[in-house]
Amino acid sequence: MAIHGAWILITIISIWCVESKYMVYNTTSKTVPGKLNVHLVAHSHDDVGWLKTVDQYYVGSNNSIQGACVQNVLDSIVPALLADKNRKFIYVEQATKNGGMCMHDEAAPHYIDMIDQTTLGHRFIKREFNFTPRIGWQIDPFGHSAVQAYLLSAEVGFDSLFFSRIDYQDRVKRKAEKSLEVVWRGSKSLGTSAQIFAGVFPENYEPPSKFYYEVNDDSPIVQDDMELFDYNVPERVNEFVAAALSQDKRVNALYSTPSIYTDAKYATNEVWPLKTDDFFPYSDHINAYWTGYFTSRPALKGYVRTMSGYNLAARQLEFFKGKSKAGPNTDYLADALALAQHHDAVSGTSKQHVADDYAKRLSIGYEKAAKVVETVLASITRSSSKTNSGSPCLLLNISYCPASEVDLSNGKNLVVVVYNPLGWKREDVIRIPVIDENVNVKDHGGNKIKAQLLPLQNASLVIRKYYSMIYLGKSPSVTPKYWLAFSASAPPLGFNTYFISSGKREETTIATPSKNHVEISSKGKQKEVIKVGPGNLKLVYSTNQPKLVGYISSKKMIKESVRQSYSFYSGNSDIQQASGAYIFRPNDTDSTKLGDGASFTVLRGPILDEVHQKISSWVYQITRVYKEKDYAEFEFTVGPIPINDGIGKEVVTRISAPMKTNKTFYTDSNGRDFLKRIRDYRKDWTLDVNEPVAGNYYPINLGIYMKDDNKELSILVDRSVGGASIKDGQLELMLHRRLLQDDGRGVTESLSETVCIQNECTGLTIVGKYYLRIDPLGEGAKWRRSFGQEIHSPFLLAFTEQEGDGWANSHVSSFSWMDTFYVLPDNVAMITLEELNDGKVLVRFAHLYEVGEHKDLSVMASVQLKKVFAHKKINKVREMSLTANQGRAEMEKKRLVWKVEGSSEEAPKVVRGGPVDPATLVVELAPMEIRTFLIDFD
Amino acid sequence: MAIHGAWILITIISIWCVESKYMVYNTTSKTVPGKLNVHLVAHSHDDVGWLKTVDQYYVGSNNSIQGACVQNVLDSIVPALLADKNRKFIYVEQATKNGGMCMHDEAAPHYIDMIDQTTLGHRFIKREFNFTPRIGWQIDPFGHSAVQAYLLSAEVGFDSLFFSRIDYQDRVKRKAEKSLEVVWRGSKSLGTSAQIFAGVFPENYEPPSKFYYEVNDDSPIVQDDMELFDYNVPERVNEFVAAALSQDKRVNALYSTPSIYTDAKYATNEVWPLKTDDFFPYSDHINAYWTGYFTSRPALKGYVRTMSGYNLAARQLEFFKGKSKAGPNTDYLADALALAQHHDAVSGTSKQHVADDYAKRLSIGYEKAAKVVETVLASITRSSSKTNSGSPCLLLNISYCPASEVDLSNGKNLVVVVYNPLGWKREDVIRIPVIDENVNVKDHGGNKIKAQLLPLQNASLVIRKYYSMIYLGKSPSVTPKYWLAFSASAPPLGFNTYFISSGKREETTIATPSKNHVEISSKGKQKEVIKVGPGNLKLVYSTNQPKLVGYISSKKMIKESVRQSYSFYSGNSDIQQASGAYIFRPNDTDSTKLGDGASFTVLRGPILDEVHQKISSWVYQITRVYKEKDYAEFEFTVGPIPINDGIGKEVVTRISAPMKTNKTFYTDSNGRDFLKRIRDYRKDWTLDVNEPVAGNYYPINLGIYMKDDNKELSILVDRSVGGASIKDGQLELMLHRRLLQDDGRGVTESLSETVCIQNECTGLTIVGKYYLRIDPLGEGAKWRRSFGQEIHSPFLLAFTEQEGDGWANSHVSSFSWMDTFYVLPDNVAMITLEELNDGKVLVRFAHLYEVGEHKDLSVMASVQLKKVFAHKKINKVREMSLTANQGRAEMEKKRLVWKVEGSSEEAPKVVRGGPVDPATLVVELAPMEIRTFLIDFD
Repeated sequence: MAIHGAWILITIISIWCVESKYMVYNTTSKTVPGKLNVHLVAHSHDDVGWLKTVDQYYVGSNNSIQGACVQNVLDSIVPALLADKNRKFIYVEQATKNGGMCMHDEAAPHYIDMIDQTTLGHRFIKREFNFTPRIGWQIDPFGHSAVQAYLLSAEVGFDSLFFSRIDYQDRVKRKAEKSLEVVWRGSKSLGTSAQIFAGVFPENYEPPSKFYYEVNDDSPIVQDDMELFDYNVPERVNEFVAAALSQDKRVNALYSTPSIYTDAKYATNEVWPLKTDDFFPYSDHINAYWTGYFTSRPALKGYVRTMSGYNLAARQLEFFKGKSKAGPNTDYLADALALAQHHDAVSGTSKQHVADDYAKRLSIGYEKAAKVVETVLASITRSSSKTNSGSPCLLLNISYCPASEVDLSNGKNLVVVVYNPLGWKREDVIRIPVIDENVNVKDHGGNKIKAQLLPLQNASLVIRKYYSMIYLGKSPSVTPKYWLAFSASAPPLGFNTYFISSGKREETTIATPSKNHVEISSKGKQKEVIKVGPGNLKLVYSTNQPKLVGYISSKKMIKESVRQSYSFYSGNSDIQQASGAYIFRPNDTDSTKLGDGASFTVLRGPILDEVHQKISSWVYQITRVYKEKDYAEFEFTVGPIPINDGIGKEVVTRISAPMKTNKTFYTDSNGRDFLKRIRDYRKDWTLDVNEPVAGNYYPINLGIYMKDDNKELSILVDRSVGGASIKDGQLELMLHRRLLQDDGRGVTESLSETVCIQNECTGLTIVGKYYLRIDPLGEGAKWRRSFGQEIHSPFLLAFTEQEGDGWANSHVSSFSWMDTFYVLPDNVAMITLEELNDGKVLVRFAHLYEVGEHKDLSVMASVQLKKVFAHKKINKVREMSLTANQGRAEMEKKRLVWKVEGSSEEAPKVVRGGPVDPATLVVELAPMEIRTFLIDFD
Repeated sequence: MAIHGAWILITIISIWCVESKYMVYNTTSKTVPGKLNVHLVAHSHDDVGWLKTVDQYYVGSNNSIQGACVQNVLDSIVPALLADKNRKFIYVEQATKNGGMCMHDEAAPHYIDMIDQTTLGHRFIKREFNFTPRIGWQIDPFGHSAVQAYLLSAEVGFDSLFFSRIDYQDRVKRKAEKSLEVVWRGSKSLGTSAQIFAGVFPENYEPPSKFYYEVNDDSPIVQDDMELFDYNVPERVNEFVAAALSQDKRVNALYSTPSIYTDAKYATNEVWPLKTDDFFPYSDHINAYWTGYFTSRPALKGYVRTMSGYNLAARQLEFFKGKSKAGPNTDYLADALALAQHHDAVSGTSKQHVADDYAKRLSIGYEKAAKVVETVLASITRSSSKTNSGSPCLLLNISYCPASEVDLSNGKNLVVVVYNPLGWKREDVIRIPVIDENVNVKDHGGNKIKAQLLPLQNASLVIRKYYSMIYLGKSPSVTPKYWLAFSASAPPLGFNTYFISSGKREETTIATPSKNHVEISSKGKQKEVIKVGPGNLKLVYSTNQPKLVGYISSKKMIKESVRQSYSFYSGNSDIQQASGAYIFRPNDTDSTKLGDGASFTVLRGPILDEVHQKISSWVYQITRVYKEKDYAEFEFTVGPIPINDGIGKEVVTRISAPMKTNKTFYTDSNGRDFLKRIRDYRKDWTLDVNEPVAGNYYPINLGIYMKDDNKELSILVDRSVGGASIKDGQLELMLHRRLLQDDGRGVTESLSETVCIQNECTGLTIVGKYYLRIDPLGEGAKWRRSFGQEIHSPFLLAFTEQEGDGWANSHVSSFSWMDTFYVLPDNVAMITLEELNDGKVLVRFAHLYEVGEHKDLSVMASVQLKKVFAHKKINKVREMSLTANQGRAEMEKKRLVWKVEGSSEEAPKVVRGGPVDPATLVVELAPMEIRTFLIDFD
């Protein structure tokens, strides 16, 4: 910690050796006025997976990679603490023994996952030790988010937050002006009500050089046994004092904790500088921007995000039926997800075998959660047999869904149960592969509904075949010919059932692919452009040089020239600083454009139009425009990234429009608040622009947008990626990276993901989506927020088969757990509904809008708990801190109130929802507010 | 351990992790008949200095070299043992915490040091834990000595001895014929009375591959927590069984110890093969004979041997005066010496900084012991002032002795106190540097005695100047011109005083150096040879091509043609197997001869003649022939060994005579028994001769000799060296080695010792001595044994100055602690006389001759304790085991008696001394017997 007043905080990653002989120095276990008080904080720092897997770190196996054994730390620290009551130790993580708390990354995780994983840890600590942590300790993550500050620190009741990695230029300035310690107000909406005292270490989180004790480190140990050689207490004390001292004062060193340090700081009653926004991007060197990891391991990032949504939905279903402690439940998935938030997990910065371990855990968790889903849906729909009920269909991204690829010619119906985990009524297009072209779709009332068959294109079949071999070890037995698309709806927290049967197509149409589609104008001339989209939204494509050129939304009165392209940066392979898992360092600010003017194939139909483009031999894109949706969906297939030219590549997509954006764009903070970004600029200091591309990248979890005087152009993403606006009127997302060098931050592997069949390996191919929409100025938030929730929580599909048509007679075909006439307000999402192991139910509601974000929706909202839980009797509701380890009121009472520079009157008044009346049970939510409740049901 | 019967012993160097969950296997903590019983022996293996120093290993510092922290082992093992009472652990060493017991080397230590260091450990264990070890565990030393087997195993009361490193060819044969487990009868003289059950591991001491648990090793740990990933108990059990199983039986694995294993073996009542002699040399590969370390670090080896003698003498003096617990005592030196016996210490196989640490400890120990000597001698001689009394003179080998280099022109006398630590009356030539040529020497009766001044030659002065800078950091203030030599005598365990004063020389003569000394024969012709030596013994030198050509002892009627030379082998630098600290691998069987025919300078005098030869620019030799001694002394100065040709060199000296030795020669075992060696031959197997030089090297501590039908040619050494007889009639000693490659056995340093002034470093120069004598056949033993004791225990000199001649009036000038008319028999030495910290006195007498070694002296001898301790009253005498941790009778009673192949009647009858009559207190000693007593004095 900076010397601010007269405290120094020195961290020590170490284990004491307990010795019976010692030299007595004149120090106390308390801070001493008038002396330079040096707080020695001994702490663990266990990466729950980095160079080794979490379990390997715990049990101490695979030590040839890294000598580390957490259980030995635990076994040795306890006697050391017992031996001297003055000693302190902070155990930073819980995950090392099947707990759930890690030091999560702050760039790549979604805020719901951050809350979940922190809750897991905090409740574990509360349950096992009856202790409520007071301090945030994010010393390793590679940059720090606003959400971490206000949500995961202030809102969990912390009194301070410590971390170390901020931009080296920022640090220099803060050291000089003594502003390493600040009050950080991370939320514009929650303002002073959710600010936190934050301390940045003067260096990286290592202790002063020569006092860094990790396995095999070269710092000399304090050899305090006078009977042995190399006794060095006096020298080490002198070195310590020298390291600590920069003022002419006497030194008092004490075993300390961040809590003790925080209290000492607080007791000074000082006024602290104000910090807003966040600490992204992070750079530790002139050419070392840690912005590559925003995209590193996109498949893992996508998997984590998919599992996050699945977990949320599965927990809801688990709650409805009652959680099974013995049988399968969602705990494993929750654990795996928590672990995956670690700053070397979803960040993409672990070794390959460790990344595999995270994925394996998610996969096991998913299997268990899928069993829960299957059982609950079978029970709720009153299926007589559980067989096949709820068969999941997770490989849709490679066009593979065995449950839907069934032969219906024998008269069977394919029953599709569509569960909606959102609190709103919802309608969405479902796309599943089928093997038969003669199919019809009926709703739960038995009415045939519109459906569309889209022939599976060869590019998709190739991916399907290759990756099913990789994932399943075998090729699928059948090959579907079509995607069947139809529009499904489901009530809030409820489901609906659809039936697919074989027979003469009635409401089903087949889209015929047309290559380089040409239309003839009324004047008999070949049109230079074509419009794609069966509904209000049209994408305009040039046919000469086939490419996207325009975006027209007649409903929104938008008509915009739009371009879209793919390019790659060449990764720098300079051994001084290469581009790698952490660091994005392109060879050049210029990038290489891929396949401009590629030919395309158009598939049209009543539900959606698709444009298929082979951009290059290793980039394929399907653009979808839905009749009922006012956005365009881009599904990209990127890979294997070729490296036979010896050059690593970082693939980006760009969307541009002739908008005067004045260097400004907006990116979300962990999927929650949007922060304003200005190219080549930092609010906190005068930026030396050394990396004009990498230095302008920011993490994106929900989306990125830009605006001009008239409109907003937004892109939403399906996983965390890096994004930027390198030119005015242009947004870019980095979608995939494959690099040939290690970037020298410890992983000692190059980031070059491959998949292998036998010994034949190829670069990993990524299939993902992003979404584009243009709104009139001030209206974009509604889509970003509502559709953002839909991306996170898609329909959960379950399949079963049934003989004949009698399903509706014997089953429940449609149902909502909420009151039939109730939906959540448009500005509120239920982000948690979970039965805890003690039987209590954890519920969180989140207001989705910031103050001023939307003219109608940035207002106080109300949720009627009785209607949300219409089918249950609420016994007791207790509002809790965000991580549910203490009562909210109790937390508010204890919280330290820090003084901030500038008068407090200047800070805008903060509005929050009022207390919940036990009679009415109405929950008010102010903009950006998240409220957490433990509910007892009868 | 070999599968012999149905036991396997598997060693595990490991720490248990204590886990609460486990899988129950059907095993017991006992051996089970009918199953293959696999004894799992968890043990420590802490090198008390190898890559790190002993203290660094203990506290866990310097972990960048090697991750090892013994106190952590101790801290973790105790809870692990407490957690499961079935668990066992053997803690192999004690030295890690200022104890004294290491796993000593078996090639380079002297048997007295082996006894001392083992005693230190055993008595520590007895005192702290009231436990008497039963098992020898020498799993790491690089070959195994007969003395280890019979003396340090059988005679300390062990029931078995385990080790692993034997010649790879030997191992193959033993594995095949199931003779890895044997009864080892190491002593020809003590025969069946001192044999031991010995087990050789079937591989090196590592457990089966994949079960080798050391820091950062790749063996997978047993991950036994089913809730974590990589749970592998079933696989590991299967692998374990596969590793253990080579018979079709069921396996029972148990936590075990060597004791349990030994008892199980013993219970089978089997008959074991007999092993005699030793397991030298050790080779682990066709070109990897571990015979280089017999000589590696000759300076350290010399220092250890010098300190061994000093320690023996200092302890005697300490006993005479009464040991001080508070003040300086000899304990530190004893500890340092014990440590220095470690198999990476005196062996010369540690890293350089660790070797420095051993030397530093010896140096500190010496300083403390010298204080004891000074105090005791001052007290005993009744010196009024302690000042300067007993000033030691340890740097005589570089011609530096500040105490004797004093100005006597002011009338002062230099008082020289000569202490004789042997039990025999003794006369020896003392040589000390003096600055004045006008000196006389008087005995304690005031009589002037014969003295001889030998001008210090330039070669010696160069060494003196350079090494005093290195050792002391400064050049001596004066430069002595002469060595003063005179013959001194001292009673057994007593001292005598001599006085050196300035004045006209009376009985003192100056030897004038004569270059290439030429004598004219009576016929007026230049003699072709000259004879050197003022007494009975003459060395004959050719003058044409100046070199030694003959040896004439008129008294012994010996006249022999003798040659002596220096050569070097070029160390192989093949990276597959280079010559290095452990391994001797010459490039070629041929060596390069150094300076044949070098010119020489002769100094003659009444006491001794010296021949100075500059053999080459880096080899210098002084040959001394004393008037009263019937041996020649060779003092060699070897170094800096040049390496600017990029070739490492291993320097040998050779003595040859026209003797038909039929490939046969004799070398000692740790300075005790002599073993017969036959070139290119092993008694236990048919040797494939792959290394005709290195494979014929043996460790030498006392000496090496060869014989023919008429005579014996013996060489005795002043430290441990490697030696061989590569040709009939020739003996060679390796004196120094400097190599440029590491030999791949873990040290990762090349053995290239240097000394530095500032940053200027040169190769280390070695000054040492060896001694040559030729006897009629059957008469060599007397010299080897008696003079061997004199080499180990030279006169201890102390110096003081006195004004005038009144010393005798006020001081005791001559004294023996033994009865004035008593001396020990010629065949007995007192090898220990030590006051223990509990006040008891530890005494050991050793018979110096083997059965049949000498016609008169290989007989039962008697020592009269009352006369030995003539000045003290003996209260109680208790005979103890060799390491004095149990009564001898008790030990004999407990000892397991093993059955040996061949009828026991065939074994020669063993004679031992009878019980000590408490009235007469006469100790009988049979050939080679060592008897140990604890004596209470009143």
